[in-house]
Amino acid sequence: MEPATAQAPAPPAIPAPGDLDLLCINAIRILAMDAVQKADSGHPGTPMALAPIAYLLYTRHLRHDPADPAWPNRDRFVLSCGHASMLLYSSLYLSGYDLSLDDIKNFRQWGSKTPGHPEYGHTPGVETTTGPLGQGIGNAVGMALAETHLAAIFNRPDYEVIDHRTYFICSDGDLMEGVSHESASFAGHFKLGKLIGFYDDNHITIDGSTDLTFTDDTQRRFEAYGWHVLRVPDVNDLVALDAAIRAAQAETERPSLIMCRTHIGYGSPHKVDSAKAHGEALGVAEVALSRKELRWPWTEAFFVPPEAIAHWRLARDAGRDVHASWQMRYAAYQQAHTQTAAELDRRLRGVLRPDWDADIPVFTPENGNVASRAASGIVLNAIAARVPELIGGSADLTPSNNTSLAGILNYNPGDRAGRYLHFGIREHGMGAILNGMSVHGGLIPFGGTFLIFSDYMRPPIRLAALMRRRRRTSVERACGALR
Amino acid sequence: MEPATAQAPAPPAIPAPGDLDLLCINAIRILAMDAVQKADSGHPGTPMALAPIAYLLYTRHLRHDPADPAWPNRDRFVLSCGHASMLLYSSLYLSGYDLSLDDIKNFRQWGSKTPGHPEYGHTPGVETTTGPLGQGIGNAVGMALAETHLAAIFNRPDYEVIDHRTYFICSDGDLMEGVSHESASFAGHFKLGKLIGFYDDNHITIDGSTDLTFTDDTQRRFEAYGWHVLRVPDVNDLVALDAAIRAAQAETERPSLIMCRTHIGYGSPHKVDSAKAHGEALGVAEVALSRKELRWPWTEAFFVPPEAIAHWRLARDAGRDVHASWQMRYAAYQQAHTQTAAELDRRLRGVLRPDWDADIPVFTPENGNVASRAASGIVLNAIAARVPELIGGSADLTPSNNTSLAGILNYNPGDRAGRYLHFGIREHGMGAILNGMSVHGGLIPFGGTFLIFSDYMRPPIRLAALMRRRRRTSVERACGALR
Repeated sequence: MEPATAQAPAPPAIPAPGDLDLLCINAIRILAMDAVQKADSGHPGTPMALAPIAYLLYTRHLRHDPADPAWPNRDRFVLSCGHASMLLYSSLYLSGYDLSLDDIKNFRQWGSKTPGHPEYGHTPGVETTTGPLGQGIGNAVGMALAETHLAAIFNRPDYEVIDHRTYFICSDGDLMEGVSHESASFAGHFKLGKLIGFYDDNHITIDGSTDLTFTDDTQRRFEAYGWHVLRVPDVNDLVALDAAIRAAQAETERPSLIMCRTHIGYGSPHKVDSAKAHGEALGVAEVALSRKELRWPWTEAFFVPPEAIAHWRLARDAGRDVHASWQMRYAAYQQAHTQTAAELDRRLRGVLRPDWDADIPVFTPENGNVASRAASGIVLNAIAARVPELIGGSADLTPSNNTSLAGILNYNPGDRAGRYLHFGIREHGMGAILNGMSVHGGLIPFGGTFLIFSDYMRPPIRLAALMRRRRRTSVERACGALR
Repeated sequence: MEPATAQAPAPPAIPAPGDLDLLCINAIRILAMDAVQKADSGHPGTPMALAPIAYLLYTRHLRHDPADPAWPNRDRFVLSCGHASMLLYSSLYLSGYDLSLDDIKNFRQWGSKTPGHPEYGHTPGVETTTGPLGQGIGNAVGMALAETHLAAIFNRPDYEVIDHRTYFICSDGDLMEGVSHESASFAGHFKLGKLIGFYDDNHITIDGSTDLTFTDDTQRRFEAYGWHVLRVPDVNDLVALDAAIRAAQAETERPSLIMCRTHIGYGSPHKVDSAKAHGEALGVAEVALSRKELRWPWTEAFFVPPEAIAHWRLARDAGRDVHASWQMRYAAYQQAHTQTAAELDRRLRGVLRPDWDADIPVFTPENGNVASRAASGIVLNAIAARVPELIGGSADLTPSNNTSLAGILNYNPGDRAGRYLHFGIREHGMGAILNGMSVHGGLIPFGGTFLIFSDYMRPPIRLAALMRRRRRTSVERACGALR
C-alpha cells in the first residue's frame, strides 16, 4: 500500500459522509492539476472534467483486479483522449494498481511510469497506447470484438469464462477524426453490445469553442451507426451518470455511447470551460484557487486524505473477490473441459502450437512465377489451418489480397466464432481494430489491403510498432517486460 | 466533331422519340462496357449504374462549356469513386470535350488520355485526381468553399462573376472511409449550400453485399452533419432524379446529398447487382447479352447512334451560351470594377504579385534560437499580408503550429471573405479540402498540424504531389501542359 496517508498534515475538516464520493472524485482533480503543475507540462483540464466517470468506473463498474492487471477476463478501459493521461494514472494509483504516488509525482519525467500519454506495456493497467486521436475508439472496438469471439469459441454452458465489457472515453477530437467513423460504423454493424463509450462533450478544443468548426449532432450520428445513445446533462450528477452506465450495461444488442456534458478544467475558477485548461499547467496561483473552489482544505501538493484513499482502495477488495470468483469458475472449467481450457490457456499465454508452421510451403523455381499475393494467400491459409487464433480479413479487397481462408466462416453477430472479418472500405478503422484485438490477447489478428492504401492506416501501423506487438525480443520475453 | 457517326452500320431500329433520353444514357453504358472489355481491365458496373446521373448533369444541370474546360465560373464535378472513370470519360466525350472516340478506345492504355482513374491535368474536364476512396468528397468540399470565398471577395452588386455549384458522386466505399466523415462534417458546419452530392447506393462492394459490413443509416448520418438529404428510389426514374437535383439546387443553406438507389452493372443480365460487375470486364458474351438487355440494336463496339451524339452535343451549344453570357457579365464587371477584375484575373492565372515576398525576414545568428514553428509563423504572416490568395489554417493546432494570421478574420458562414480556417481535429479532411481549394483556382491554400499527425493526411499529401500543385516546372508552364 502506498504510504500516501503518512504525509497527512494537520487534521482537515472531514467532509460530511455524503461527500465521500466528491472527495474521491476531487482527489483525481487535485492529483491531475498538481502533477501537471509540477511537470509544468501536460493536460490538466480534461482529467478534472472527467473525474466522475473514472471514479464510478474504477470503484463501481469495472470488473478488474488492481493486483493483477493481466487477469484475462478483466473489463477493458481505453482512454482514447490519451492526453488526459493523468485521469488514468490517478485512477490507477488511487484504486491500488502498482503505481505509486512517486510515480504520479514523476509525471512526464524521463523513464517514469507516467509518460505524457499512456503507453502499452509500460504502466500497469494501461491497456493500449493512446494519444493520436481516434485510435482508442478503434482499439476498444477491437477489444470488444475479441471478447465476443473468444467467448464464442471457449465458453461452455455454465462456464462463461470469457465475459467482460470494454469501456472507452473519447473527446470531441476523437469524434472529429475519421477513424471514429470507421470504427463506430463497424461496431454498430457487428452489434458489439458490451462496448460502452463515454463522450466528453466539453465544447472546447485547442483552437477555442467547438462552435468554430464542429456542430455534429453526435447522438443522431451514432444512432445512424446502430448505437444506443444516452445523455447525461451534467457529468457531476453521479446518480444520472450511474444510471446511464447501468442502462448501457443492460443493453446487449447495440454498443452504447453515453454523451456527458462536461466542463474542461472543472474546479479552476478562471480556466473552466476554456481552451486554457487544455494543454498547460494551470499555474501555481490558479491551482491554489482551484483547491478553494473544490473546497479541498489541504494545501500540500499531491496530498489525498486517507479516507479517500481507503474508499478508492475498496476497488482492490472488490477486484480480489471478482477475480477469485472467476478463478473458481475457471478451475471448474478446467476440470470439466480440460482440453478446451488448455487451449485457451495456450492462446492467452501467446504461445504458438508447436506444429503451427508445418504446412507452410516452400516455393522453388519449379513453381514458376507466383504473384506475391498468390503466395501470400497460400501461406496465410497454411497458417490459418493450424493457428486457430489467427483472425482477420481485408478492407474490402478479399479477392484481390487473397486473404480468404478456405473453410473458415465469416465473423458476424450470428456467428461470433467465425474468424474471417469483412472490414469494409475502412483501412484506418481496420488498423485500429486490429491493434485492439492484439492487445486484448488470445488472438493473432491480420488485415489486408493494397500497399498504397496502407497510407490510410499509417497511424495504427505506427502504434502497432510502438507497442511492439508480436515483436518482442527473446530478452524482453525473458524479462517479462512486455506482456 | 468526332466522326463516330461515320461508322454507323446498317440502319438500326430508331428508338421512339421518348426514348432519346434512354438512348443517350445507354450510350454511356455501352461505351463503358466496351472500353473495359477492349482493355480487358477496369470497372464497367458503376458507370452502367450511374449513367442517368451523369447524363442529367452533363446535358441539363452543369453550367459548363465543353469547349473551354478552364472557364473559371464553370460548375465543378468530382467523381469521388474514380474507378468508375468510364462514366466521366464517356460523359466528356459525348458532351463534346476534347476527348475523342479513339481516346475512349484507348482506355487504360499507356500514354492515353483515359487512364484507369481520372488524373488532374491530364484529361480535359477532369477536375481532380480520384481513385483512393473518399478523397473526392473532400476535394468537392474544398471547391465549394473556394467558390464561396472568391464570391465574397470579388462579386459586386449586379456583378456575380463567381457563382457556381460543385457536384460530386460518391460510392459506398467513399462513405465508409473516415475522410468522408471529416469532410462532410466540415461542409455541414460551414453551410456549403452549393455543394450537391450523389450517393451511389448499390448495396455492393468488392467483397460482396454491403450487408457483410455496412448498415449505416446514411440519411440520418448526413442529417447529423447538417446536410439536406434527398432520396431517389430508382436512379433510372429520370423525373424523380431531375426533381431531386432541382430540390438540391434550391436549397442554399445546407449541402445536399441525393441518395440514389442504383444497380451495379445495370443492363448486364447475369452480373447486375453483383460484385462481379465491379472490377473486371463483363466478357464478350455478356457484353452482347447486355446490348440485348438494354435494347441496343447496334452490335459494333463503341458505336453510338448519331441522334444520341447530337443530343448529347447540345451541351456544347448550351455551354457556349452560358459561357458567353458570363463573359458579357465579366466584361461589364471589368468596366465597372477595373482593379478588382484585374486582381481576380491575376489570381485565376495563378500569378503572384511581384512584391509578394518583400516582407519575408532573413533570420541571422543575431536572432538567436528561433523555434521552427515560430519562424514559420513569422514567415507565414509576412506572406499572408501581401498574398491575399493565401487561405488556410490548422487542424486544431493554431496556437501550437503558429498558423494564426494577424488581422485576418476567420472564414465562416457569416463572413466568407475571412481567410483563416479552423479545420477541427480533421487532418485527413483538411488535406482533401486543401487539394480541392487548390485545383479550384484563385487560391493558395495551406494547412498546419504536427508532423506526426501528417500521417493522418498522407493520402491527400500524396495526391497533391501527383497533381503537382504549385510544383510546375518552367517547361510545363511554357507548354501549358498543366493548368
